[in-house]
Parts: sequence; C-alpha cells; structure tokens
Amino acid sequence: MQTVGVIGLGLIGGSLGLALKQQRDSLGEQSYRVIGYDSSPERRQQAEQLQAVDQTSDDLITLAQRAQMLIIATPVLAVRQVLAAIAPHLRPGTLVTDTASTKAAVLRWASELLPAGTHFIGGHPMAGGTGSLEDARPDLFHGTTYCVVTPWQTEDTGEDVEDAEEASETAEARLEDVIAALGAKPLRIDAQTHDRCVAAISHLPFLTSTALVETVADSPDHELMRQLASSGFRDTSRLAAGDPTMYQGIALTNREAITFWIDAYITRLQAIRQVLQAESGQDTEGEALLALFRQARLHRKDLLG
Amino acid sequence: MQTVGVIGLGLIGGSLGLALKQQRDSLGEQSYRVIGYDSSPERRQQAEQLQAVDQTSDDLITLAQRAQMLIIATPVLAVRQVLAAIAPHLRPGTLVTDTASTKAAVLRWASELLPAGTHFIGGHPMAGGTGSLEDARPDLFHGTTYCVVTPWQTEDTGEDVEDAEEASETAEARLEDVIAALGAKPLRIDAQTHDRCVAAISHLPFLTSTALVETVADSPDHELMRQLASSGFRDTSRLAAGDPTMYQGIALTNREAITFWIDAYITRLQAIRQVLQAESGQDTEGEALLALFRQARLHRKDLLG
Repeated sequence: MQTVGVIGLGLIGGSLGLALKQQRDSLGEQSYRVIGYDSSPERRQQAEQLQAVDQTSDDLITLAQRAQMLIIATPVLAVRQVLAAIAPHLRPGTLVTDTASTKAAVLRWASELLPAGTHFIGGHPMAGGTGSLEDARPDLFHGTTYCVVTPWQTEDTGEDVEDAEEASETAEARLEDVIAALGAKPLRIDAQTHDRCVAAISHLPFLTSTALVETVADSPDHELMRQLASSGFRDTSRLAAGDPTMYQGIALTNREAITFWIDAYITRLQAIRQVLQAESGQDTEGEALLALFRQARLHRKDLLG
Repeated sequence: MQTVGVIGLGLIGGSLGLALKQQRDSLGEQSYRVIGYDSSPERRQQAEQLQAVDQTSDDLITLAQRAQMLIIATPVLAVRQVLAAIAPHLRPGTLVTDTASTKAAVLRWASELLPAGTHFIGGHPMAGGTGSLEDARPDLFHGTTYCVVTPWQTEDTGEDVEDAEEASETAEARLEDVIAALGAKPLRIDAQTHDRCVAAISHLPFLTSTALVETVADSPDHELMRQLASSGFRDTSRLAAGDPTMYQGIALTNREAITFWIDAYITRLQAIRQVLQAESGQDTEGEALLALFRQARLHRKDLLG
C-alpha cells in the first residue's frame, strides 16, 4: 500500500481522497492510503467529518517525508509555496504531482525547487467546478480527461539521459495508476500545448462569464434585470462564481495565451455584430444569422460529443 | 371553464398545457380546457402521447373561433404569421397573448393586424431553455417572472379612452389569472424597457455563447480541445445549443438593443484584457485581478439572489 499525501483539501483534494478510498477493496496491494493536509484547521476538521481522507495531518513537513506520493491540490500560485516548503524534506524516489490549471509555470518551479532524485509530473484533471470541499464526491473524475504533463527536458540528476528517461517513464506510469483508480483517462501532453488549449476551452470561458456579469451589473436597469434573469444567464455566468484566488493565479501564469484568446473572441463578436447590422431588419430576412446559429449549434455538439 | 388555445407545441407550449391541466382540480369553475395546435402533425401526435394538452387540433381557424383565449407560443417571427392567419376569424372579447422573447415588434404587429374588439397583451415567461416538447413539465414556470406587456397606446375601437383602458385592465387581469395558475409571478413592464433589459440578461448571453463556440471551433487545436472540454465550457456555451430559428427572430426584432449590449460587453472585455496586461507577471502580484474576480462573484450573487 502506498501512502499518498493530498495537500489542499478543496473540491479536488477531497474528491481525490474519496475516490482513492473507494477503490481500496478492488486494488488490494496496489491501493492507496490517503493523508490530507490543509493549512486551515477548519478545513482539516471538515475533511475528517466528511471522511474524505483516511487521516489528516497538521504537519506538512512530516507528511512530505513520509508519503511515497504527494498531490498538491491548491490554487496554482500556492503550488510554488508548497514546493518550496517541502523540497528540503523529500526522500529520493518521491513522486510529486499537482492539479493546477496551468502547467508551464508549475514545471518551471518544480525544476527550480525540487532536489535531484525526486520526480515531478504535472497533472490537471479536467473536472471540478465552482464547488468546495463539501461538494467533493468520489465520482468527480469518472470518465474525464486527466492531463499528464512531463518536463520537456531531463533534469540534471547525475544519471545519464537514458536512466533519467526511464525514471520519468516510471513516474508517469505511477501517476497513471492513480488516474486509472479515479476512473479518469490520462492524456499525455506538453506544457505549452496544454496551456494554449486550456486558455481557450477553460480560461477564456471564465473571463467571458466575468465580463457578462460586470456588463449587466453596471447597467442602471440592473434591479429590473435581476427579476428577469433566468437559467440562460445563470449558466452562462456560472464560472464568475468561481474562486477568485484560483482565477487570479491562472490569469497570472497563463497571461499570454489568455490574451491571445480574448483577442480572437472579440474579433468573433465583432463579426457577429456585423452580421446583425447587415440584416435589413425586414422580418423575412436573416439567412446569415440563421446560418450562424445553426453552425454554432453543430460546432458545440461536435466539441462536446 | 375557459377554452385556451395554445398555438405552437414546443417546450413552452407543452409546459403551459401540462401546468394548466394540473391546476384543474384546485381552480374548479375558473379552470382551463387546453386545446393545442401545431403546424407539424408529428408534434401534435407527440403532444397527445405526452398528454400535454386536453386535445389537439389541426385547424388553426376553428381553434381561433372557438377559444376564449389564445396563447401563441412560437418563435417570434412566426407570431406575426399566426396573428395574420387568425385575425379575420376572432370573436370580439377574445384575449390573444404570446410568449415570444421580444415585445415591441409583437405589439406593433398585433396593433396592425388584430380587429377592434379583441384584446392583445404581450407575455414573456422568463423560463425555458434549450429543450423541446419532450422536456415540457408542469412546474417549468414555478417561481419565475412572467412579463405582462400592454400596448402603450389605446386602440381605436370606437369606445372612449376610459372604456378602452378598462377593457385593457380586464384583459391583463385575465392573463394574470393564467400566470397565477402557472405558479409564476407577473411583472407589468412596457415593451421598450422589456426589450432593452432582456437584450442584456438573455440575448447577449446567447451571443456570447455563440461567439465562444465559434472561437474554439475555429482553432487548429480543436480536436485536442474537445478532449479537454469540461463542465465550465459546457455551461458557458449551453445557449449555443438553442433553437437557431428562435435566435434569428430575436436578433432581427431586437437588433438595436442587442448591438448596444455587444458593444458594452466588448468594452468590458477590453478593460479586463488591460488589467491582465498591466500585471507585471510577478507571482506575488495580481491584486487588481483578484479584486475584479471578487467583485464579479459578488455581483453575480446579487443578480441571481
């Protein structure tokens, strides 16, 4: 049985604990014992009440020394702080991974901070939402994609390149075993491609939600609009209810890619505006608009399967 | 018992039928008998199978002659066609209403097309979604706002102004009885205010969804993005799965207000882009971003209660 330390007990950390605990019987010797750490005593207590982990710890350093695997499930900027805190205490062979939404910055910090002989593999489960620990559930990751992001350069560990590659491959396989236990599908991807793609599919949407809420809130009619808001506004703006600290970290660590996609999105909106303005306003017209909405419906179906 | 004709058997028409049928026992003499019409024979058959209405009719004219109240639950452009078709056959005292998403155009058509002695009150239930008849349910309108939109000028009916006002008041009260039976809350509002507000809270969101889908679909990475798409993209883009014909009609009949809000939204996005660019990229910074995301979270909570 491996001891896994989950650092950060939010929706992701809590769900990781619940999922790994649930798999214990079927995994036998390959199963995981989960120790949870959070800097907040209330959060640790809540995790115990929910039985989200086997045990909690209030001592990050001892946990880092003891676990064979550490999963850092904090907002992205805190990943750096955790790496700095645990680095001097890790035993050789310890696998460290994270669940943050951007990967290039995290891999850079890991290569700067972690000692030779430890293995870092970036992780990113494409599941979650705006919930917190009380929304944790063991099936959160079922059927979802889980990104596995390896450093693109081998570390200077004193081993030769072949050994380093082998060690990295072993580390990836260990993470993929955990991913399999979660019921998720691993996707090996490099950090640059990952960050570019999630900027479009995940980070742009929380900025479009934020902009939508702020546009409406700024209107002198917002009292009336509140009475008129329905499920459409609720869904389209849902991501604006997410954790501000998480979004801040994502925006700071994926700034260039997000800026690129904001620009592409504004260009698209301007094109739609132009289609709308080009209509004569006659009630029998509007073919270009109809074609646009039909195409978007098909594209969405294609993207979401 | 009043006979209500529901014209157009989609999600809204079907749910109206189910809700009014369900209220029959508690309303007694004040209850409604619902006859459903749809131009599609398949849709009529489906409505019968679902028992969404008491009876279906394949004859719009006879239904128009027979019902005391007609609810036109079609996409907005079809409302005009229905009004033109039924106008010559309506008996004096018939109340005609609709459920379309824009109201100024509908009120104009009604005043142009309907004969003296009939009453038209615009209606707009703030419920719905992207579903169709098979998603109809009796509680769709429970607790939601239902806009009641009266013509802002009295019609030239030969009566004096006071009589016309009284007739209009009676017609509004009749519609509000139906709204009460649906479990919804009536909101009296003029057409211009309505169209301006729903442009922001409802029509802008389906354009932001459409633009999001089209931005992503256009990327050379869209195959990879498909594997990475999660609940955030699903919710933010949900409205792009809606009925293209409905959206086309809304866009054509509320063009100026929608254009105004697209511009306001683009300005907001550009401001967010500027906040992002102004950050130095140091990991300890980002106060302005954090403040923005915190504010949007509060504003959303305030708007949605």
